[in-house]
Amino acid sequence: MVPSRMPQPELIIVSNRGPLSFAHDDSGALVPTRGGGGLVTSLGPAVAEVGGTWIASAITDADREAAAQGVVEAQGFRLRSLVVEPDAYRLFYDVVANATLWFLHHNLMDLARRPRIDRRWREAWEGYRAVNAAFAEAVVEEAGDSATVLVHDYHLSLLGAALAEKRPDLATAHFHHTPFVEPTGLRVLPDDVATELLDGLAGHRACGFHSARWAAGFEASARSVLDRVPPTFVAPATVDADEVTRAKESPDAAQRLAALDAAVGDRMVIARVDRIELSKNILRGFHAYDELLATRPEWRERVVFVARVYPSREGLAEYLAYRQEVEALVDVINDRWGRPGWAPILLDTADDFPGSLAVLRRYDVLLVNPVRDGLNLVASEGAVANERDGVLVLSSEAGSWAELGPFAVGINPFDVSGTAEALDEALSMDRAARAGQAAALRQAVCRRTPRDWLDEQVRAAHTAPPAR
Amino acid sequence: MVPSRMPQPELIIVSNRGPLSFAHDDSGALVPTRGGGGLVTSLGPAVAEVGGTWIASAITDADREAAAQGVVEAQGFRLRSLVVEPDAYRLFYDVVANATLWFLHHNLMDLARRPRIDRRWREAWEGYRAVNAAFAEAVVEEAGDSATVLVHDYHLSLLGAALAEKRPDLATAHFHHTPFVEPTGLRVLPDDVATELLDGLAGHRACGFHSARWAAGFEASARSVLDRVPPTFVAPATVDADEVTRAKESPDAAQRLAALDAAVGDRMVIARVDRIELSKNILRGFHAYDELLATRPEWRERVVFVARVYPSREGLAEYLAYRQEVEALVDVINDRWGRPGWAPILLDTADDFPGSLAVLRRYDVLLVNPVRDGLNLVASEGAVANERDGVLVLSSEAGSWAELGPFAVGINPFDVSGTAEALDEALSMDRAARAGQAAALRQAVCRRTPRDWLDEQVRAAHTAPPAR
Repeated sequence: MVPSRMPQPELIIVSNRGPLSFAHDDSGALVPTRGGGGLVTSLGPAVAEVGGTWIASAITDADREAAAQGVVEAQGFRLRSLVVEPDAYRLFYDVVANATLWFLHHNLMDLARRPRIDRRWREAWEGYRAVNAAFAEAVVEEAGDSATVLVHDYHLSLLGAALAEKRPDLATAHFHHTPFVEPTGLRVLPDDVATELLDGLAGHRACGFHSARWAAGFEASARSVLDRVPPTFVAPATVDADEVTRAKESPDAAQRLAALDAAVGDRMVIARVDRIELSKNILRGFHAYDELLATRPEWRERVVFVARVYPSREGLAEYLAYRQEVEALVDVINDRWGRPGWAPILLDTADDFPGSLAVLRRYDVLLVNPVRDGLNLVASEGAVANERDGVLVLSSEAGSWAELGPFAVGINPFDVSGTAEALDEALSMDRAARAGQAAALRQAVCRRTPRDWLDEQVRAAHTAPPAR
Repeated sequence: MVPSRMPQPELIIVSNRGPLSFAHDDSGALVPTRGGGGLVTSLGPAVAEVGGTWIASAITDADREAAAQGVVEAQGFRLRSLVVEPDAYRLFYDVVANATLWFLHHNLMDLARRPRIDRRWREAWEGYRAVNAAFAEAVVEEAGDSATVLVHDYHLSLLGAALAEKRPDLATAHFHHTPFVEPTGLRVLPDDVATELLDGLAGHRACGFHSARWAAGFEASARSVLDRVPPTFVAPATVDADEVTRAKESPDAAQRLAALDAAVGDRMVIARVDRIELSKNILRGFHAYDELLATRPEWRERVVFVARVYPSREGLAEYLAYRQEVEALVDVINDRWGRPGWAPILLDTADDFPGSLAVLRRYDVLLVNPVRDGLNLVASEGAVANERDGVLVLSSEAGSWAELGPFAVGINPFDVSGTAEALDEALSMDRAARAGQAAALRQAVCRRTPRDWLDEQVRAAHTAPPAR
């Protein structure tokens, strides 16, 4: 027998959204289903393989009901759900995590107006502190001696300091799935908040990022408020190629692909698959396509832009407005260039995983043009799922740029003309070049597995404890 | 006789907006009047004293008519106006300088939507290059051997490289009146544009800024695209104290002050004087006042917020929208807190210099809370004009923070609650503390004169030429 991997010490994963969510079946019984979101998709299978406890928020009423039963074991996970009072959760999640920290880390604040650090925001910050403290308490309760604790993402920035104080025996690491704000952006926060945030992260043995750029941003920001630089590590997440392959061959995906083939025929397909959110740069992607059709008339009627973009965080006005702009722009472009039998853009806003896989199988060009993105797993999923030697057009501002840029047509995501040129270049690439690039891209994506990624985090958590 | 200052070599000032603007009098004759804007106010008198040629755009039809007469000498200035075709001027001024570079340098881009670097933007960039080239040509024509050339602000970023090539004998410096974009912000521009912009500035013997922070941003950005760091200097502009004193004692100003006194009576006055623009943070200033009235009821009816804010750049939709938000918010706050005989906020959107001086004479607290500002001369003008030992509440993000911060109540401009606290602290300060702080502030402002500032620029222009 081949020697298996090193045995793992007790592992605890901590994230706001957990690997299971609950619903009632027809009989009224609570039934767990696999939770969504990129974090769980990329981390879940490896954790299920290794074994460990996952601590996460109970988000729905059914989640809270399940949480009352204590630790739940299902689908390979051991889940401890944390019940947070809905009002506190809203302050923690909507106001601080999503409307403040997410925008700061992504450089997407409309700084003339936001954030507005007023009394209400201060209440929300207290909510963020309280939820983080509750998570820390749960870790303290669950973790055996010298357990390994991996805390995930910007919702839980404060755990490191609490755990370093209460349980210095634990080997802890934090992994940030977003970019990290630089010192000038950090100045937006009041000094006490900025310091508490960075100090919270610096309590871990190490802080991890998908890209060296985000690690550098974190280091510079830590230096600016703490006068020290905590240890960091760079470990981009990756997809489970076998899992993607299994999923794309499902009957549902096959059915969606047949429908897509019927709709686009033998035209070339430019595709994108994204949540509708401001960082994804959906508007400029369509503007670039508009410029492509205007300046390279030879592509008219020969290409279809298939956009599967599905709503996200519509509780925030910014997201709702952005969605409306996206839909309006698609109408403008389809009206401007469409001809009988040819709609330039096929827009689908249903959140449908088999449908997304069908698009990834079928594209000739995949547009991944975020203005700033922690990683972007769609680029990787596309590389594995695609069956036409499709070309990746990739933003230099995606975290995956460092790994995948050499095997993609690179763009500055703000440069609409440059993106139109890149689309033209990708559409025009000859068969041999496409095949070579697609193979190299797939190889780059498959070089590491989700299990490798998990192991890198565990190793980082066992860095020597930082001097306090 | 006291020895006068060193004789100046031939001096050429280059800026988009010049020291004179023209209009027709009743007889139809062209009459020059002193031009507006902070640049001319701070630089004009010293240049008039030293003597020199000013090269600037002819902006109005009357300006263009005057330009046809060649170099005009009036009011102590020798002006060469450059006639730019109106469409090209719009591309240069509105699209590139104001809607792109200004927003980039001020970190105020709504990056999910702007800039959109498309075909039209590229045309505008060609316009920017053409206008910069025309300015360079005018300098080449006007400048005698080894003249000193001082180029001002972000409209004219490309002159340095052109002059270094065509007239290496000239001693040139560039002075940036805004903050300077950092490397992450610079990545928004296409590589060729970013490089041309930084290379344009790096052609000067030195680049000057109001604050060491902006110089550091420029150095980092230059390093990121040019792999070298051009010489910089830090020389904050200052006000002409004698001139402010003369102006504030004018009959017009006295009349405005009498009207203001009648309106506010013996109430305390919080004041602000600003152009309505996104960097000035007018909304959060009013939100802070709203929080002050909500949380410290003792100030209700005892204080009036006198806001002289006047429209600016209303050709840009962002500015028009911001003005509407400002006016709506003032209505909300006056409705919420107003009582018979007391309007909490007196808003005046007339651009009236004597009126502004009256407010500066009368304030008890001056609120200067920009989110990002090259310098902010209002803080200095207030220190000189004020007659009530008024307290300055100053943003840490204003360029003047480095010089004046020690003599002000400091705020993080994003922190509405912190600003409310600062207003309370400033209103509550006892007489002795106010007098001491006001005197120290005045002294700091008067330490240097506009002539000193001009001399610093001239000295910087005589730095050894940079290696090319």
